Amino acid sequence: MPRVLIKNADVVTLNPAGDVLQGADIAIEGRTIAAIGAVPAGFIPDETLDATGHVALPGFWNAHTHAAMTFERGYADDLPLDRWFNERIWVAESALTSDDVYWGAALAAAEMIRGGTVGFADHYFYMDRVAEVIQQSGLKALLAWCVFGLASEVGTDLEGSLEFTHHFNGAADGRIKTILGPHAPYTCPPEFLTTVAEAARREGFGIHIHLAESEEQVMTSLKKYGRTLVAHVDHLGLFDVPGPILCAHCIYVNELDRQILTIRGANVVQCPNCHMKLAMGVTPVLDLLARGVNVALGTDGAGSNNNLDMLEEAQLAGLIQKQHLGDAQVLPGDSVLRLATRHGALATGFKESGVLAPGMAADLLLFDFDQPHLRPRHSVVSNLVHAARSSDIRHVIIDGRTVMKDRELLTLDEERILWEAERRAFGMIGRATGVVREYRS
Amino acid sequence: MPRVLIKNADVVTLNPAGDVLQGADIAIEGRTIAAIGAVPAGFIPDETLDATGHVALPGFWNAHTHAAMTFERGYADDLPLDRWFNERIWVAESALTSDDVYWGAALAAAEMIRGGTVGFADHYFYMDRVAEVIQQSGLKALLAWCVFGLASEVGTDLEGSLEFTHHFNGAADGRIKTILGPHAPYTCPPEFLTTVAEAARREGFGIHIHLAESEEQVMTSLKKYGRTLVAHVDHLGLFDVPGPILCAHCIYVNELDRQILTIRGANVVQCPNCHMKLAMGVTPVLDLLARGVNVALGTDGAGSNNNLDMLEEAQLAGLIQKQHLGDAQVLPGDSVLRLATRHGALATGFKESGVLAPGMAADLLLFDFDQPHLRPRHSVVSNLVHAARSSDIRHVIIDGRTVMKDRELLTLDEERILWEAERRAFGMIGRATGVVREYRS
Repeated sequence: MPRVLIKNADVVTLNPAGDVLQGADIAIEGRTIAAIGAVPAGFIPDETLDATGHVALPGFWNAHTHAAMTFERGYADDLPLDRWFNERIWVAESALTSDDVYWGAALAAAEMIRGGTVGFADHYFYMDRVAEVIQQSGLKALLAWCVFGLASEVGTDLEGSLEFTHHFNGAADGRIKTILGPHAPYTCPPEFLTTVAEAARREGFGIHIHLAESEEQVMTSLKKYGRTLVAHVDHLGLFDVPGPILCAHCIYVNELDRQILTIRGANVVQCPNCHMKLAMGVTPVLDLLARGVNVALGTDGAGSNNNLDMLEEAQLAGLIQKQHLGDAQVLPGDSVLRLATRHGALATGFKESGVLAPGMAADLLLFDFDQPHLRPRHSVVSNLVHAARSSDIRHVIIDGRTVMKDRELLTLDEERILWEAERRAFGMIGRATGVVREYRS
Repeated sequence: MPRVLIKNADVVTLNPAGDVLQGADIAIEGRTIAAIGAVPAGFIPDETLDATGHVALPGFWNAHTHAAMTFERGYADDLPLDRWFNERIWVAESALTSDDVYWGAALAAAEMIRGGTVGFADHYFYMDRVAEVIQQSGLKALLAWCVFGLASEVGTDLEGSLEFTHHFNGAADGRIKTILGPHAPYTCPPEFLTTVAEAARREGFGIHIHLAESEEQVMTSLKKYGRTLVAHVDHLGLFDVPGPILCAHCIYVNELDRQILTIRGANVVQCPNCHMKLAMGVTPVLDLLARGVNVALGTDGAGSNNNLDMLEEAQLAGLIQKQHLGDAQVLPGDSVLRLATRHGALATGFKESGVLAPGMAADLLLFDFDQPHLRPRHSVVSNLVHAARSSDIRHVIIDGRTVMKDRELLTLDEERILWEAERRAFGMIGRATGVVREYRS
């Protein structure tokens, strides 16, 4: 088993005690953290990273995204949610191919590793191609093939999606997990959601779904089904499944909805940047946390955000709640970092990640603190929460494997990805709209 | 005169037409942009920058900060405004020395140049030392020596402040301008503000002041003076001055206040990150802009923000208004970039900066777009507004002088600054609180 030794880091463990160690060594054996602090006697590393002046943090978990939507970055800005969907995103996606998903997800993987994301929950189409990217990049992921229950599904229907979940669950040495991905209660007919719930129960999977994104969606649900969106999908059995439940957004949730989410052990994923940019509203994160709901963070797709930067999401998550509740004291200290790390790992079922402690997965980042905006170090946690940028991350280790070293990606051909992704993104929009844009290398 | 040629950049001019040029050259002669697009015949450059894959943007203007407060970065988080002031910042500043201001401002200068700031409005103490930093760094600045009208002023009183404004106005080849800096109407007695206003009128200066930061401040002003804060300082003559008027914050401003700000030609400076972090409220930016008020952006000091990142401020300025007004369409396109560039240049009296056009000052940034989070380039403006980070800036030019090249600072000794700033910041807090912290190099 390969052994990595990280020397002389300040370690923000994010363990329950909130321990921050100064000048500590981290010993990694295979995929696991063997020790933090004193290195075990006889530990002879294959690789040593000098982390003097660096701060170690658990890697980020992006708990709701659509990776291949990097192709739509900057294609649909300054629009309200409905026009964003109908006039831009769905038009572009009408021309989506399996290869587009591969290169879009590869572009996302390069961006995510650079930004310190070690794993993500993806919800899109042609997910076998995203699995390829996971295999190659070293990332971890919980993959859902999005289905609507329509005649014209993208890539496959529920049956194919089930085949995908079975085939890829546990693939890439366990770095891939799978889950069912019905799109949303406002797009999927109730009978279809019942069928999905039954399949999840029967075959042992969880559910990743969009929920309560707008007041209008809730109103329509009340009118159509006599229930709020959360109560509706719960009534259909969607929360009575053996795997994890990921509910993206949950902005418009009333008292009963919140009780249902709590009792059912659902994971709520807030997407702070997307919610602000599309003026969607504020997920009641503090209230949900107080009830014991596991709240994680996601970037959503780059068509709405427009990047996949989880440190930015964490920072925004704190700022939004402080502003929204008019209280500078909420979400203090390292709490927003936990939302973007441990909570995401728990939400996606990677329970061995998100805390730096012996026995946990070696999923970690090293931030270079020898930079003006990270000095003085009155508090390295505070500097991470309020001053750092994801570009300060110098090394990224996933499952004990160094996937970025000195800001160089070791598992991906970045130059080719930039080239293929951009020309194919232009091509996709061209096919969808008839407006062909010349690609400049 | 030294000549610089920038080759093959995509140029976001931020001119009134919003022109974006593809693959354009920029010719710089001395301190000025000579041409954009076709280079004049016979233009032989002393320095050439290949900007293939790069995007040029006017440099950022930080219209309200306290540069040397980098010393308090991460020292006062998760506190409401009054406790932040009284329990932390003013305690720390009780031990402030002239040398602390020099090194704190030097740390700020290094951070600002890295983040693409070409000029800033500073409001603090021992401002002769900040002027030294401006002289050395190549930055531009509008400097105010903060005064309260108290017996125990920090460093100097109004008389000394006036001496400073006269001595340094136009210094560093015009890169330094000066302005009077009464702290705020809730800290300065009315008679003192009248004296400051008279001095400004008599001696030809403007006013940089904190205004309407909290509802409580407005209420106290109404009770004490029978006027809101804005009406109060206007009544005292503070807006009847020959130089620029910079009003930082302006969160709680009623209809009459807004009319006064408009008629008086005041510049309002919003500090988005600080306002969110301290839960201060939302400056009515859209309404002020609609009335014709010049709204600029500032970081405030690193004790409250906690960085000096103007691209982040611009991005937040857009997100805050979209969320606050519930309208994804407000502040569209390049408008938030204008707040952080042209509007700041106008507010600080550097009217030749903030737009890329022939005859304007050569204050500009080159962003490296060969990165995953900046592809595809459906819109380089959108990628700047919604996906870029200030760390994507590779070269910074101020007044025709390259102050950062390939992310290396050319005018400052960064290593020494990091060392001096951190140990002196620890020392200052130690003197103020008795809690001495060991410095680790």
